[in-house]
Order: sequence, then structure tokens, then C-alpha cells
Amino acid sequence: MVPRYSRPEMSAIWEPESKFQIWFEIEAHATDALADLGVVPKAAAKAIWERGKFEVERIDAIEAEVKHDVIAFLTNVAEHVGDEARFMHQGMTSSDVLDTCLSVQLVRATDILLDDMDKLLASIKKRAEEHKYTPTIGRSHGIHAEPVTFGLKLAQAYAEFARGKERLIAARKEIATCAISGAVGTFANIDPRVEAYVAEKMGLDIEPVSTQVIPRDRHAAYFAALAIIASSIERLATEVRHLQRTEVLEAEEYFSPGQKGSSAMPHKRNPILTENLTGLARMVRSYCLPAMENVALWHERDISHSSVERYIGPDATITLDFALARLTGVIEKLLIYPERMQKNLDRMGGLVHSQRVLLALTQAGISREDAYRIVQRNAMKVWESDGQLSLLSLLQNDADVSAKMSAEEIAERFNLDYHFKHVDTIFARVFGK
Amino acid sequence: MVPRYSRPEMSAIWEPESKFQIWFEIEAHATDALADLGVVPKAAAKAIWERGKFEVERIDAIEAEVKHDVIAFLTNVAEHVGDEARFMHQGMTSSDVLDTCLSVQLVRATDILLDDMDKLLASIKKRAEEHKYTPTIGRSHGIHAEPVTFGLKLAQAYAEFARGKERLIAARKEIATCAISGAVGTFANIDPRVEAYVAEKMGLDIEPVSTQVIPRDRHAAYFAALAIIASSIERLATEVRHLQRTEVLEAEEYFSPGQKGSSAMPHKRNPILTENLTGLARMVRSYCLPAMENVALWHERDISHSSVERYIGPDATITLDFALARLTGVIEKLLIYPERMQKNLDRMGGLVHSQRVLLALTQAGISREDAYRIVQRNAMKVWESDGQLSLLSLLQNDADVSAKMSAEEIAERFNLDYHFKHVDTIFARVFGK
Amino acid sequence: MVPRYSRPEMSAIWEPESKFQIWFEIEAHATDALADLGVVPKAAAKAIWERGKFEVERIDAIEAEVKHDVIAFLTNVAEHVGDEARFMHQGMTSSDVLDTCLSVQLVRATDILLDDMDKLLASIKKRAEEHKYTPTIGRSHGIHAEPVTFGLKLAQAYAEFARGKERLIAARKEIATCAISGAVGTFANIDPRVEAYVAEKMGLDIEPVSTQVIPRDRHAAYFAALAIIASSIERLATEVRHLQRTEVLEAEEYFSPGQKGSSAMPHKRNPILTENLTGLARMVRSYCLPAMENVALWHERDISHSSVERYIGPDATITLDFALARLTGVIEKLLIYPERMQKNLDRMGGLVHSQRVLLALTQAGISREDAYRIVQRNAMKVWESDGQLSLLSLLQNDADVSAKMSAEEIAERFNLDYHFKHVDTIFARVFGK
Amino acid sequence: MVPRYSRPEMSAIWEPESKFQIWFEIEAHATDALADLGVVPKAAAKAIWERGKFEVERIDAIEAEVKHDVIAFLTNVAEHVGDEARFMHQGMTSSDVLDTCLSVQLVRATDILLDDMDKLLASIKKRAEEHKYTPTIGRSHGIHAEPVTFGLKLAQAYAEFARGKERLIAARKEIATCAISGAVGTFANIDPRVEAYVAEKMGLDIEPVSTQVIPRDRHAAYFAALAIIASSIERLATEVRHLQRTEVLEAEEYFSPGQKGSSAMPHKRNPILTENLTGLARMVRSYCLPAMENVALWHERDISHSSVERYIGPDATITLDFALARLTGVIEKLLIYPERMQKNLDRMGGLVHSQRVLLALTQAGISREDAYRIVQRNAMKVWESDGQLSLLSLLQNDADVSAKMSAEEIAERFNLDYHFKHVDTIFARVFGK
Repeated sequence: MVPRYSRPEMSAIWEPESKFQIWFEIEAHATDALADLGVVPKAAAKAIWERGKFEVERIDAIEAEVKHDVIAFLTNVAEHVGDEARFMHQGMTSSDVLDTCLSVQLVRATDILLDDMDKLLASIKKRAEEHKYTPTIGRSHGIHAEPVTFGLKLAQAYAEFARGKERLIAARKEIATCAISGAVGTFANIDPRVEAYVAEKMGLDIEPVSTQVIPRDRHAAYFAALAIIASSIERLATEVRHLQRTEVLEAEEYFSPGQKGSSAMPHKRNPILTENLTGLARMVRSYCLPAMENVALWHERDISHSSVERYIGPDATITLDFALARLTGVIEKLLIYPERMQKNLDRMGGLVHSQRVLLALTQAGISREDAYRIVQRNAMKVWESDGQLSLLSLLQNDADVSAKMSAEEIAERFNLDYHFKHVDTIFARVFGK
Repeated sequence: MVPRYSRPEMSAIWEPESKFQIWFEIEAHATDALADLGVVPKAAAKAIWERGKFEVERIDAIEAEVKHDVIAFLTNVAEHVGDEARFMHQGMTSSDVLDTCLSVQLVRATDILLDDMDKLLASIKKRAEEHKYTPTIGRSHGIHAEPVTFGLKLAQAYAEFARGKERLIAARKEIATCAISGAVGTFANIDPRVEAYVAEKMGLDIEPVSTQVIPRDRHAAYFAALAIIASSIERLATEVRHLQRTEVLEAEEYFSPGQKGSSAMPHKRNPILTENLTGLARMVRSYCLPAMENVALWHERDISHSSVERYIGPDATITLDFALARLTGVIEKLLIYPERMQKNLDRMGGLVHSQRVLLALTQAGISREDAYRIVQRNAMKVWESDGQLSLLSLLQNDADVSAKMSAEEIAERFNLDYHFKHVDTIFARVFGK
Repeated sequence: MVPRYSRPEMSAIWEPESKFQIWFEIEAHATDALADLGVVPKAAAKAIWERGKFEVERIDAIEAEVKHDVIAFLTNVAEHVGDEARFMHQGMTSSDVLDTCLSVQLVRATDILLDDMDKLLASIKKRAEEHKYTPTIGRSHGIHAEPVTFGLKLAQAYAEFARGKERLIAARKEIATCAISGAVGTFANIDPRVEAYVAEKMGLDIEPVSTQVIPRDRHAAYFAALAIIASSIERLATEVRHLQRTEVLEAEEYFSPGQKGSSAMPHKRNPILTENLTGLARMVRSYCLPAMENVALWHERDISHSSVERYIGPDATITLDFALARLTGVIEKLLIYPERMQKNLDRMGGLVHSQRVLLALTQAGISREDAYRIVQRNAMKVWESDGQLSLLSLLQNDADVSAKMSAEEIAERFNLDYHFKHVDTIFARVFGK
Repeated sequence: MVPRYSRPEMSAIWEPESKFQIWFEIEAHATDALADLGVVPKAAAKAIWERGKFEVERIDAIEAEVKHDVIAFLTNVAEHVGDEARFMHQGMTSSDVLDTCLSVQLVRATDILLDDMDKLLASIKKRAEEHKYTPTIGRSHGIHAEPVTFGLKLAQAYAEFARGKERLIAARKEIATCAISGAVGTFANIDPRVEAYVAEKMGLDIEPVSTQVIPRDRHAAYFAALAIIASSIERLATEVRHLQRTEVLEAEEYFSPGQKGSSAMPHKRNPILTENLTGLARMVRSYCLPAMENVALWHERDISHSSVERYIGPDATITLDFALARLTGVIEKLLIYPERMQKNLDRMGGLVHSQRVLLALTQAGISREDAYRIVQRNAMKVWESDGQLSLLSLLQNDADVSAKMSAEEIAERFNLDYHFKHVDTIFARVFGK
């Protein structure tokens, strides 16, 4: 966990205090269920809720001696509850508490992430609508291709993050399970109804079959979902970085008055937020690997997954939360330069319209191969002139073209609006009515 | 693609012949749709279906010259169709064909994988039911814990692969999209209805917003789903490897009469199939990384994803198909040794029942801490005797225990069936009624 | 950074205090060099050393405003130094400080890791020599193969970690470079002699060609070296986990008197340290990926590597330091059970000697194929008897064998020492004279 | 292995034919050594060399039955050699052959890769010298920073690949070992002198301690070295992709006359080779992960590494060989546009010189903070004018500046050569004399 890439609400989930509070609730709910079943006295369950407390430092001190965190916790709580504490944890095993707690933490983390995603989606949608018809050049291979609108670029990002959100909802379901099934998952010493009771109280489903632990394919799926969202963050961040390049400069991260771009070069306004997001994406992506390696635990369980999760549980969720919020800020405040977009669009002497001419020629009866050659020979001249020559004039003066199309017919192929006639259709697909 | 880890049905999907056939169908259906819209002559569409053909070698030869695979393909088809071929690919871009084709290939691959999963699930279920009540020791940390049944182990694997199947179904949906949207996804030169028509014909959904390419977060999600299934394969394979260890030997891979375990040691029967599966799992897992790195394509697209997909498209699906089939065979024919399981269960002198005694003592009024200490001091003696001493006798002779429980009451805690009373509940959760 | 997996000496390197102290030294040495070259007044250089100070909180406060850490630092130092502070950082760029500082931190971290490796190597060597001739079964595929000694197992681990140490020394060289080359690495505003001076003072080499930043292939190589050492840790940890399995129990992690193995099962002594090491290895391994993705910075530099390094710089070195120390403790205190090793060796009824008989038969003139078949048919009987039958007696009573070898000649092939005649040779290879 | 990304010389190493030929040589040399030691008849060793042969199809057929590749091979060779074949493979185990063969294959592959690296280095050096003093803008964060030369960019790439070559040489040493040590590495049935003999004949070192297998940390280090070289390829490829962007266009991949950039847009000249290299780099990088997971084999060995190596052995070396050759071609034929570089340099109205002015002002007695503010306020005006305003004029007309420096003194800070005075120093560092 890197403090500068952490936000308090998410970090709080991973604090020892929060963890022990969840442990306490699991233990106390379980004792309630045991009391309902007549396994332990109702008074004991009541006592736990009433007198149950814990202190993080005290637990740490006990753990240093017994080298077992759940026993340390139970011992500390028992110090407050007194004799009736012996009815706590009846028939349970440490993992019943640990794994169910991790589920609760991941569910809470996911709820924050889902909220982050909603904010990001809202900010993208707002800017997409603002720039629904702002013309800009579409680029493939970094090379000018054909016109798009800036809104379309953002619509694509919206659709991608909307898919990410769906995956996150599915991932939440994956890890929202509760296991209170005893030492090897047989419920030998604890009734399955305790599990059902605790699950409901903690907002989880029951784990159909556990083996002391909740199976780690669930967690692997969870961290993979985060990794893919991170990759989408990298994509949008990369787009902004490209747009902010000196030669392109179609958009810029907001640059606050006090900010300094470079200790050496005072004129610099660098896309440092999106570069930072690119790095954060690498981290969140990397965490899915140890999560996948965690799946193949030995037999009913080994504890190799635990250290991994002490890192990636907090690190993946805290980093992704920070990254989503940062990206939302970038998009919200993004400086967008439509005039520069138009200027860039124009700089290629009309080359972006070449395909339309190509199609017109084939429809006028020229073979595709010939049409391609005709257009390309003119296009290449424009290309080599660095946009000083105009494709329109060259074509109007090419005998093979003018044999088939009038100057007006050719000019008609250079109309930008032609490209945007389906923008509305696409927006409807992405944003709904 | 490693031939020895390939099966013909899956490999066929990735043959050039199959790919070009899909390209042909996409182009021909698109031309049909264009003809319906009146953009091209109906006769042209008909001619393409009637005379359209291709030869892999010829396409390769043309590509060697033009360095563009789709143009090479179109040129070759045009050689057969004749003049009307110029109406093919109208307003389309190469990626319309390439990406939609990849979707079709991945969908077909997934259908095979889903069938593989069904077979694996069926084989696991069959063996689980056979051994629903076969007692065996549950192990945590590789150490004997408490009894489970072999059926429960398999029920866990079933539930895990059933989740894998659900993820695969979701992954199939992710990549089952069709994009026929032109050079930068604006439908500038092609009506969106062409896309809808081709999508339906090819069994796909339309891609709501494409940017020349189908967005690669879909593919990342797809390969991640495969990677997690591979991790589950590794888990079950690792279980078998553990069970086949000389000292454990509770199960063995089927060993065919002609097979030789070792060139040097004729007695050896090695779990080579499941070791092999462990390695194959590593490979399938690794493929999700470049898939995730593919997400952040530049602007509307760059082609860096393409080489990656030429590897991992075939390699991930072919390897996973092979691995699932191999694992199915391993489970179907697995030699399971219940007597040996019982022998291993017994070898610890009854230590596996220690928790039940612990609970009985706390219920008889001893504090959990004291009960723990009493049981542990006897358990440690048994442990150090390597199972020669019996925990039951020691406890019956421990004054602190006999003060609270009769010899019969203690013996009653050593009954194996006690542990299996909820097996049926768990089976119902996993396999349904 | 997970506190429970951190040790203070290593963590200290990554504290803000340490980082700013290194920054200060780099700036102050650079100013000395500039003063020597006559670029800035000698008095300024002196003033910086004399009055230069910083406060972490103050730097944080300034950074919150200017959003640039090096400028914040320089501003804070200037508050103490006064007017002469303007001669600091002359012609330098932030990365000159940041990257050189990271080099210093990684070098210091590596020196701790090298010390860790030495301690681990010493502990492995000590136990290897103790058990140089302790017989134990060698296992391939988890199946008994032929006898080895426990010392040989450890000699293998020693050789592997010795290679790891060599790789770490090479990795240290990779990242021990200093760049003071200005905004784009041209030394436009700073003399290369400043770089040479600072490099020498900070214990680094000069970076032959930097581009504002030190190239990140160096860091990728560094983190890859750590990842491979982590993989070797996993290997030795896995060996211990296997040896501690209930059925094998040839070695055990030291179990301290106060320790509790399970909250539920008092008899359990689990290999939790080596399981933990397995998880930690997964983490250290995972960090090499974002480090490799950091290599392809854009043009002369982008800052995407920075956030990655804020995680993996501390996390990889702190975790590996902890893991090496933990593994050293595990090996030092490992409980080794030679009697149990002998018992396991004997349990297969002499099958481990099958290859020697096979060889003897071929040397007695039987074809390899026939010999294999003869030995295997007897070996299989022993195998199926679970070690109750003796391979020696079976062979002595097999007519095809007795036709070629006397009972004594056969018995001679069952001598354990035969296998250990080259142990000394191997020890000499690994540990030297 | 993807045929289109394969070159014949490298692929040949991984053909079954080559593999079996190496197996044959290992077996035959080993038999020679055994004969020298008097273990087997000299005539047998001679017979093997004289009559020894194999047929790939026949081996495959036998393996299909016996399910063991080395036994299949030995059986096939024995069919040719006759009775004396029984002296082959005496005291050896399959891995002695398999692992030593893999070492030979990787060594041969590495020799090709080293040759590839030499060619790449030569091509980079040639272009670097050509453009040693070609001015171009240095960019940090994609934003114009200060001038560099194109030669310097290439010098950086040269130094990086030279480091990669050193790592590859070290990696070659890692895997150039021979193990002929028998079933568990004890040399029980084979004299260590056989290993030494075969090692020398096959151009390898002896493995100091093997455990049936050569330890896999060596291979992990090997594939990591390849992964880092791949990352460097990605870096240089990314540089070319950036330079070829429409708005930048300072360099272009060579575009052959017959080549077509886009099926739809005839004017397009796309950096498809370097985009392709970016994808190939992702693949080679990904292979280091399963290689690292291979390290922790169980006990003396399990065979999980084998399937992994059947993929990554060929795939990593073949792909890297192809990528290095492709990159060499890209660099050799790269179209470099110095005029365009100059044009881009000039387009920012002199902003790239801002730091020099900043320094001059501080040296003229203005505090760094004030100087920064003065320069920045002028720089921002130029920036916002999109390079229409000139920083030089603005500064000459800024009272705070002119109070300290004359117009000439200011102008002198805008001289490009100032930045290149140490280019020669850097070239000497990188290329030597």
C-alpha cells in the first residue's frame, strides 16, 4: 500500500480495526445461531454482544506469543466477555472467520469500486455528449485514417468501462460467500444453519462446498476482473497521453495554477496523471497472477494464499479505487481543443477522404484494383507534400477519375458530415435512448 | 501449438482453411446484405456464393507480394468470381473481417471447451457419487486434520469446475460480437444493417461501438477465464499427484499394460498425466498476460494485438481443450484405493478426533483454554509415537478427562460417521436434488 | 509493504527520511563538483553542507501545492540554506536526483539481501554437512526412486542459492549507476564531470547514456533476479512442506512451546512458515512483470515507471529480505528425523534397488528389454503388496534371474552404500575443498 | 510456434530430427566414455557410432505404445545397432539425455540469438553514426523538452541492446550444463567421468549437483534474459511507432513498392513491423513466468516443467530470433527525415531553450524561484500561441529579463550546438573509441 495512491474510505476497510470488527461480528452472529439451535446458552450469545471488545495492540501482543491470529483475537475478546467466551467459536475453525471476513472486506471494497465506476461512467458520458459531434481524426497505427468525433472516442471508453462494471458485479458475486463449515468443511461440529445465519447477517451467500477454506478460484476471478479494468484504464490513459503530445495537442490534462511541470523546463505541461495511471494499471494487472497461483492449494487447504492476500487484497483494491477516481478527475476536467482537432484533421490535404473516392470509383464501374491504384497514386503525392497538396484538386485533375466523375461529384466525397451520419445510432447503442 | 498437446477438432478451427472459409462467409453475407440494401447488384452477391473459392497457397503467394492478408484473400477470390468481385468488401475494412472471424473462431473453440467441461463435470460427478461415503482423511497444510469422504473432495472439484463453466459461458458472450463498421467504426461507408445481418448469420451479437477493431478488453476477459479454469485444473491435478505419492497412495492414475514408468526404475508408476497437466496449466495461465497488455491499443487501433493473438488464440484453446480431455480421462479411470484411505486414516492413533473431544470437554464445563491444553498434551504423545499410541486410551486414562466424561462418552467421540452426517446436504448443494 | 513481512533495516531504506537524505547528498555533492568546476561559488557548496536540512512534513506540504516532489524538496532545503540555495540543482533535472537515489536505495537493499543470502547459504551448508551421509529416499514424481542423502538435497539447494547470489551480484551491478545528465541526457547544462564526481561519492558507476532517466532494462533485470531467487525459495519451502506431510514426516519446522497449530485441532504441527514462504515467493515473482513493462518508456522518458517503482522497490526488496531470513531460520532449526527417513526408505520392500538389478542382468548378458521385463514383473508384485513382499527374495526365487546370478550376487545389489560413493565428489563440487 | 514468425535456422534446432540427433550423440559419447572406463565393450561403443540410426516416425510409433520417449528412441536405435545396443544408456536415466539435449538446443539457439544481437547492434551503430549530429527534439512525457540528436537516441538503444547481449551471454552460461548423473543424481550407476566426457564433447560444463534433472532456476534465468531483451525491442519499436505518427513523421519504416497499407485507405503507410514487434515482445516476455513457476519441482524432480518447455523452448527462441532480425531490418532501412525533425524542433517557438534562459537568469543573480516564474510566464504565452509567438522576442521584451541580460546574451541561449557539445563524449562511452 502506497499512501500517495490511497484514499481513506478504501484503506479503512483493510485496517486491523475493521478486520477485527468483522471477526467479532462473525463470531457473535455465529454464537447467536448456535444459541438458537440450543448448542450454547442464549446468555452466552448475549454476553458476547454486550461485553465483547478487543484492542488491536493486545491482540498483537498475544499473537506474538501464540503465533496464531484467531486464537489471539479470541483470547483478547474472552478477557472482556469472561467465562461465557468459551461458547464462542464452537465447532468453528480459524478459516471460517478469516475467509468470511475476507469476503466481507472484498464485498465492501467492491461496493466502493462500483461507485467509482459509476462516477467514471458519468464523467465520460457527460464529456461524450458535450463532444458528440466534435470532429477529430480517427487514427489507426498512429496514422490519420478517417474522421470520427471526440464523442465517439469517449463512447467507446464508456462501453468498455460499462463492461468492466458488469464484470465487477459478477466478480462481487464470486467472492460474496460465507463459509462456516469447520476444520475440513464437513460441518462435523457445526450445523450448516449457523453458516446460513451468519451469511445472511453479513450480506453473503453460503459457500456450497468449502474445504476449511473458500475455494480460491473465486478470488482469482475477482482479481482478474480488477486487472482487466486496470487495462481499460491504461487504454484511456494512453489515449489522453497521445492527445497531449506536443505535435497533437488535441486535449490536455487540467493544469492547476500552482503546478510545476518540470524542475528544469518551465513551459512543460506533462500528462503526468495519465502516465501515473499507466503505471498503476501495471500494478493492478500484476496482482492477478499470484491470485491465480493461489488456486491450487494442497488438499483441503494450505496457507500459502494468505500472505499473498495480505498484499493484494489491500493493494489491488486501494490502487484501483485511487486510479478510477484519478481517471474520473482527468476526464471531468480534461481540456479539449476542438480547433486543434480540426487543424489536425485538415493537415493531411484531404487524404482522410480517400476511401470514399475509392468507393465512388468502383461504383462508377472501375475495378477495385484499378480504383485502388488510381487513388493511391494521388494520395502518395499528397502524403509526400506533407499536406501541402490537396487530394481534391489532384483527383479533379486526374484524367482517369474525371472520366468517371464530375468535379462536383468528387468534391461531394470530401464532406465531413458524411462520416457522422451514424453517430446517433452508435450513441443510442452505448448510452441507450 | 505443440502437436502432442493438440486434438484435431480444436486444431481444425485454427487452420488457414477454416479461417479463410469464415472470411469468405463474412464477405459473402455482407455482400448479400449490401445487395438487399440496393448498394450492390443482387447478381454480384449471388456470383460470390456461386463462384467464390480460394486456395490457401495462392493467398500466401499473393500476400508475400502485397504484404496484406485480406487484400491477398480478396484478390484470390476475385480470380474465381470475376468482375463482380469488385462489389465484395464494399465500405468494409480488413478488421471487419479479421475481428469478426476471430470472434467466430473463439466461439467455436468455446463450444468445444464447454463440451469438454460437461464431460469433465460428468466424470467428476460419477466418481463423486461412487465415493460419496468413502472415508478418507482431510488434510490441511499436508497434515492430517479430520475425516472427509473422497466424494466430498470430488464434489469440491465439481463445484469449482461448474463455476469455471459459468465463467466460460460469460466469456463466450464477451467475444461473440461482430463488427462491420468500417475504417474507424463510424459506418461512414457501410450501413449498420450490414453488421446486424452478418452478426445474425454468423451467430454473433453486434459490437455496440467498435473503432475499426473489436475492443480487446473482451479478449482479455476471455483469456482470463481460460487461465482460471487452467488454475483449477492445476488444483485437481495437484490433488491426484499428492494422493499418488508413495507414502500416501490413496489413488493412482491408470497405468496401461504397455506403459513404462522409468527407463531406469521398472517399478515406478508415476503421476505423469497430472504433472503434465500442472505444466499445461502454467502455459494457459501465462497467456492471459499478453491478452491484458493488448487492451491498451493506440487510438482507434494499432496492430500489436494481432501477433499475440496468432499465438494465444490457438495455443490457449488447443491446450485447454487437451488438458480438459486429459483430466477427464484421469478422473474417469482413476484407481481409487479405499482400503489405503482407511489405513491412512487410522495411522495417527485417533488424532483426527481430537477436536471432538475438545468440544465435549468445553461442553462439560472446562474452559476452552484448559480443554485445549488437556487434549494437546495427550495428542502430542500420540503424535510423537508415530501413531503407535492410541489417543482414545490416553484420554480414557487422563484424570482431567475422566473427571468429566465416562470411557464410553469419550469413545463415542471417535465415531467416523459423526463427520459424515452432512455429506448429503453438501451433495445436494453441489449436484442439486 | 505488509508490516508483518518487513524487517526494520530494509524498511528503513525506503522511508521518506532516507530518501530525502540521499537526495540531499546527491545535490550537495553535485554542488561541490560544480564549485570545483567554477560554475558556482565554493561558498554556496559549503553553505549547503553546513546549513542544509529538510523536514519530511514540510516537503509534503509544499508538494501538495506545487505537485512536484523535487521542487518541494529544493524549496524546503532553500528555506534553511538561504540565498545560496539557488546554486543547488544547477543544470540538473529531477530525474538526476530521483534515479540516482533509486540506484542508491537498490544498492543498499541489495547489500542487505547479499548478507541474507550469505546467512542462508551458511545455514544450508551447516545442515548439509551434518547430514552428508544421512540416507533418505530420493523421489521423482513424488514416487520413491533411489536412495540419496539428506545432505545431497541440501547441497542442491546450496548450489541453487549460490547461483542466485551470483545473479544478485550481477543485478547489483546493473542498477548501481548514476545519471546526472540533465533534461534529456545531453549534459547541455551540466558537465559530465559532475556525474562522475557524484557517482564516485555515492558508490555508483556512471550511466554511459541516459535520456533524462536511467534506462529501465536495468531495473527489469534487477527485479527478475529477485523473482528467480524467490522461485528458489519456493522450491526449498516446498521440499520442507512435503517432508513434513503426515505420511512422510522426515523433517519438521521447529515448533515453539507456546505455538498453537490450529484453533480446532490441538495435535497439528503445520509447516506454516514454508507455506507462507510459498506465498511470499509468488509476490516477489509477480513484481518482475510490471518492471519489464516499465522498460518501454516513451521517447526520452515518461513517468509511468515511477508509480510502479514506488510499489515494487520497497515491496520486492522488503519481502525478499524477510523471506530469506525466515527461510534461514527454518533451515537452521529444522527438525530432521533420520530414523523416519530410514523407515520410509525400507517401506517399499527393496524396490529402490531395482535398477541395480536391471543393470546387473544386462551385464550378465540379458538384453535390456528382457531384463526390464524380468525386473518389472517382480517389482510389480512388491508394489502391489505395499511393501510387504521383498524384492530381494522374489528375485532370488525367479528362475530367469537365478540362471544368471547367485543369491549373493543379487543381495549385493541391495547395499545402500553403493549409492553414496560419489557423495564426496558432489560435495567437493558444491562446497569446494 | 507461428510459422510466419519463424526463421528456418532457429526452427531447425527444435525439429524432432535435431533433437534425436543430439540424443544419439549424447548416448554414443556416453557409451564411448563407458567403454574407456571398461564398463562396456569398446566394440559396443563402436557399433553404436557405426550402425546407430533412428527414424522419427518409428520412434513416434513405439512411443505411442510404451508412452515413454527415451525408451522409444533407444528401442528404435537398438533395431539398427543390434545386440550391442544393450550397452547404451547404461546407468543413465532419461533426464540425463533429455536435459542435456535441452542444454545443447538452448546453447545453439543462443548462439543464433547472439549473432542476431550483433547484427542488430551493427545496424543501430551504423545509423547512429550517420545521424550523430542530426538535431531532433528530445521528448519527455511526449512533450517537447530539449534538443538531442537522432544519433543519441540510437546510442541509447545500442547501449541497451549491448547490455542485453551481456545478459544473454550470462544466460548462455547458465544453461550450458550437462547432467549424466543417473536416477537421482548420485552417480550410483554411472561414473562422474562419463558426465565430464559427454559435457566436453557437447560443448557444455558439468552440472555440479543435479537431482535427475538440471535445476530449473537456470532455465528461469535464461528465459528472463530473453524477456528483458524483448522488452528492449518493445522500447525501440515504440520509439519508431511514435516517430512515424502522422503529426510527428520524423521517421518511417521502409515501405516497399508492392505493399498496401490498408484495404480501405490507399494513402496509409503504417508502422506495422514495429507494432508487430510490440506484440511479439509481449509473447516473449510472458514466457518467463511459466519458466519461473517451473523452478519449484517436487523433491528430486517432477515432470511438470517438461510440457512448459515444449512450448517455450521453441516459442521464446524462435520468436525472439524473428523479432531481432525484423528489428534489424527496420533499423537498417528506416527512412529518417532530418528536415522534419528540424521543423518539429522549431515549431514550439523556441520553448526548448527555456531552461538555458532560466539558468542564465539565476547566474545573473535572480533567485531560482523568481527566474522560474519569469521564464514560465513567457513560455506559457508561446505555448498558448501554438508556437506562433517566439520565446526569444518575448524574453528580449520582458523588463525583468532585459534588466539582467542584453538581447544578444539572451539570443546566445537559443543556439542549438550548445546542446550537442557532449555528444562525442557520450558516443565514446557507448561505442568506445
